[in-house]
Amino acid sequence: MNNKDLLERRDRLLGVGAPVFYDEPVHIVRGEDVWLYDVDGKQYLDVYNNVPNVGHCHPHVVEALQKQSATVNVHTRYLHELILEYVERLTNTHDDSLSMAFLTCSGTEANELALRMARFITGGEGIICSNATYHGNSEAVDELATLFHDFKAKSKRVKAVPYPESYRPLSDAKGEALADVYADEVKKAIDEFKEEGIGFAGILFCPIFANEGLPNIPEGYMQKAMQHVRDAGGLYIADEVQSGFARTGSHMWGYQNSGVVPDIVTMGKPMGNGYPLAGLVAGADLVNAFRKDIMYFNTFGGNPVQCAVGMAVLDVIENEKLQDNSLTTGQYVKDGLNKLKDKHDIIGDVRGHGLFIGAELVKDHVSKEGAVEESARVVNEMKERGILLSKIGVHNNILKIRPPLPFSKDNADQLLSTLDDVLAGL
Amino acid sequence: MNNKDLLERRDRLLGVGAPVFYDEPVHIVRGEDVWLYDVDGKQYLDVYNNVPNVGHCHPHVVEALQKQSATVNVHTRYLHELILEYVERLTNTHDDSLSMAFLTCSGTEANELALRMARFITGGEGIICSNATYHGNSEAVDELATLFHDFKAKSKRVKAVPYPESYRPLSDAKGEALADVYADEVKKAIDEFKEEGIGFAGILFCPIFANEGLPNIPEGYMQKAMQHVRDAGGLYIADEVQSGFARTGSHMWGYQNSGVVPDIVTMGKPMGNGYPLAGLVAGADLVNAFRKDIMYFNTFGGNPVQCAVGMAVLDVIENEKLQDNSLTTGQYVKDGLNKLKDKHDIIGDVRGHGLFIGAELVKDHVSKEGAVEESARVVNEMKERGILLSKIGVHNNILKIRPPLPFSKDNADQLLSTLDDVLAGL
Repeated sequence: MNNKDLLERRDRLLGVGAPVFYDEPVHIVRGEDVWLYDVDGKQYLDVYNNVPNVGHCHPHVVEALQKQSATVNVHTRYLHELILEYVERLTNTHDDSLSMAFLTCSGTEANELALRMARFITGGEGIICSNATYHGNSEAVDELATLFHDFKAKSKRVKAVPYPESYRPLSDAKGEALADVYADEVKKAIDEFKEEGIGFAGILFCPIFANEGLPNIPEGYMQKAMQHVRDAGGLYIADEVQSGFARTGSHMWGYQNSGVVPDIVTMGKPMGNGYPLAGLVAGADLVNAFRKDIMYFNTFGGNPVQCAVGMAVLDVIENEKLQDNSLTTGQYVKDGLNKLKDKHDIIGDVRGHGLFIGAELVKDHVSKEGAVEESARVVNEMKERGILLSKIGVHNNILKIRPPLPFSKDNADQLLSTLDDVLAGL
Repeated sequence: MNNKDLLERRDRLLGVGAPVFYDEPVHIVRGEDVWLYDVDGKQYLDVYNNVPNVGHCHPHVVEALQKQSATVNVHTRYLHELILEYVERLTNTHDDSLSMAFLTCSGTEANELALRMARFITGGEGIICSNATYHGNSEAVDELATLFHDFKAKSKRVKAVPYPESYRPLSDAKGEALADVYADEVKKAIDEFKEEGIGFAGILFCPIFANEGLPNIPEGYMQKAMQHVRDAGGLYIADEVQSGFARTGSHMWGYQNSGVVPDIVTMGKPMGNGYPLAGLVAGADLVNAFRKDIMYFNTFGGNPVQCAVGMAVLDVIENEKLQDNSLTTGQYVKDGLNKLKDKHDIIGDVRGHGLFIGAELVKDHVSKEGAVEESARVVNEMKERGILLSKIGVHNNILKIRPPLPFSKDNADQLLSTLDDVLAGL
C-alpha cells in the first residue's frame, strides 16, 4: 500500500490530523539496532528514537519479553518476585533517598501519579512548570503543556516560569548572577500562588529541559530554584522520561547532572525499550503516606512481563556499557557538530548531554533568529538521505539528535557527513 | 522466598498498603488457559481475571507478540499498516457510527481521553457517573471513583446518580416505572448542573454496571437516561473495560445489551490479553473536531506490537467462538448458582451477563443485609481450595465470577461443587 492510501486510511480510521513525521512520511516495517527499514527496503539511521533506548528489537530484551509472556502475566494483587527484583534494582540506580517505586504504563500515568502525590502530600494545588514544556496527554498533565498552549499554563493552579538558558538569556547577567535571575522567577511564582491563596505543591521539570531545547543551564540554577521550592514546602518532581536511563552519558539520571536530588522521579519512554512501562521512584515516607489514604492500583502496572523487560533493559545498559558510549559518542557527535558550526553559519549553537544533542539553526549569529523554514528542510532532506531526526525548541529550529544508545562513531560519521552535505546544499 | 518475606519486601519497595488479594496472598509463577500455578505447584482455577480474556498465555497471542516484538516497534508518527488493520477490524465490531479510534496504554488513559473529548466537544465540564463506580486512577478519572469516596463524587463538575437496580430498588415502582425513577435521577443531576452554571458534558457509565454489582437494570432505563443526556446536549460514554470483548456472551460489547449506542466507547483490560493496550472508538465528526484543535499523541499507543496483539485477541475470540462459550457456559454457571441458591439461604440473588456473574450473599432474604464477613470467608476459603474469585458491590458481599472466556462446563462444575462445599461449611 502506498503512502497516499495509507494516509487516507489514517484520516478515515484515526481522524484527520493524527500526528505524523515528515512532509513525506516513512512507512516503517522493520527495526534492528540503530536501523529502521521502510516498506521498500530502504535503510534509515535512527538518530531520533529514545524509546528503543538499547537498540530496536534488542535480542536480549525481546527474549525476556518472549519468555515471560509465555510463562505468566498477572497483576500485582497476586505476589510475584519479578516486581520486587526489578524495583530493587531500579531504585538502586537512584539516590538512596528514593527507595520505593510505583510502576505504570506510560510517562503520562507516571506524571499524573506524581502530581497527585505532590498535591496530596503538601495539601497544596499549585505546580510550577517551565514555559516551553510537555509532560503528557491527560487532563492534569496537559495543564503543564505550555509548548502547546502558547507557552502559558492552562490553569490557575499551574504557573509557567521561563526555562533557564544561556543562549538567549533573560538578562545580561552572567554565571551565578544569571542563575539568580532565573531562580527568582521560581520564587516569584511561589509568591504569586501565596497571594492568590493557592497552596504550593511543587515543581515539575525535566532536569535537562529537553523539550525546551536542551539549554545550557546557568551554573547553580537548579540548587537555587529547588531551595526556593523547598523553603516553601514544595516537592521537586523530575521528569526523566527523556533524560533518564543513561541518556546523558555522564550519569544514569538527568537529575544527577545538577546534583539536586528530587523528591519524586518519573520515568517512561526508554524504560521498556518500547514495551509500555513507566513509573516513578520516591521516598518511603512520601509513598507510605500516600498509600495509607489513597487506593492506587494500576491493572497492567508492575506485571511480570513489564518487570522482565525492564530488567533486560538494565542488563543491556550495563553489559554493553551504554552509558559510557553515550558519553564518548555523544562528545564525538558534539565535537563534529561544532566543526560543522565553523563551516556553516546557519548553526548557531550546539549543546546537550551525552547522546542527546541539539543543534540550533539561526538566520545569523547576532539576531539568533530561528531558521525555521531551513530547519524543516534539513529534517526532511536528512530523511530523504536515510537519516531520521527531528526538531525541538520554542523557535522550532533546533535539530534533535537522540539516537538509540548503541549509536557508534561510524553512525556518527554518517550523520555528520550527511548533515554537512545537506547544509551545504541549502 | 516465602510469603512473609515477599510481603516485607513489598512493604519496603512498593510501600505499605500496596493492594493485595486474600488474607494469605497467592504467589503466582505460571499461567495457562484458565489455570494459574503458585510457587509450590498448586493449581488454581482462575474465576476472576478478565485481563487474560482468551486464556493465560494463549499461544496465538503470545506468538503474535513474540513475532512483532522481534520485527519492529515504533510510534505512530511513522506509518505502519498494523494500526490501520487493527482499528478497521476493531471499529467493525462496533456500531457503524463508531468508525474511528484512539489507542492508549490503559483504561485510565482511555477514560481520560474520553472525558477530555466530551468536555472539549460540548464546552461543558459536568459529568454524571454512578454512585458506586471506579473508572481509573488519574486525577480527572478519580473524580468519578465514587466507590472509594464514600459513594460521592469528588468534584463540583461531577455528579453521582444512584445506579439502576432491581434487587434493592430506590422505590416500589416496578418495570418501566422503576426505570423512570432512576432515569429521573439523571435528569435531576442535569438540572442541578444547569442551576449551578456548570455546562453539561455527558455521562460515563459501565453499560452493565460491573463495579456496582451487575444489577438487573430496569427495562428501558438506558433509553430513558440517555434521552435525558442527549436532550441536554451531553454525550454518552460507555466504559467497556470490563463488559467488552465478548464478556457478556449475548454481544461483543456491553452497550449492545441495551441497544443504546454510545458516543464514545472506552476499552481496556481484556483488549491485549495482558499486554498494555486500551483505547476508545467514537464517531468521525467528534474525533475530527477534537484532532483539529488538540494535539493528542500517545508514545506507546498504537504501536505495531499493541496492534499485533490486539488482532490476535480478536482472532481467538472468533476462532474459538468465545462469545458463544461466554453465553452458554455463563448460563450454565448461572443455572448452577440458582440451584445453590435454593440450597443455601445465604445466596440472595444471582445475576449477570455471560461469563460475568455476581452471586450476592445476604444475612436473610427479607432484610437483604449483606453477609460481608461470610463473603470474605468464602473468597478466602475458595482460594484455599484452589479457586480464585473476588467480591464486588457497595455492600462488599457479591461474589465476582469473571473467568477467562475459555472457561468450560467442567471448570464450571468445579467452581459450583467447591462453592457448594464451602457454603455448606460456613
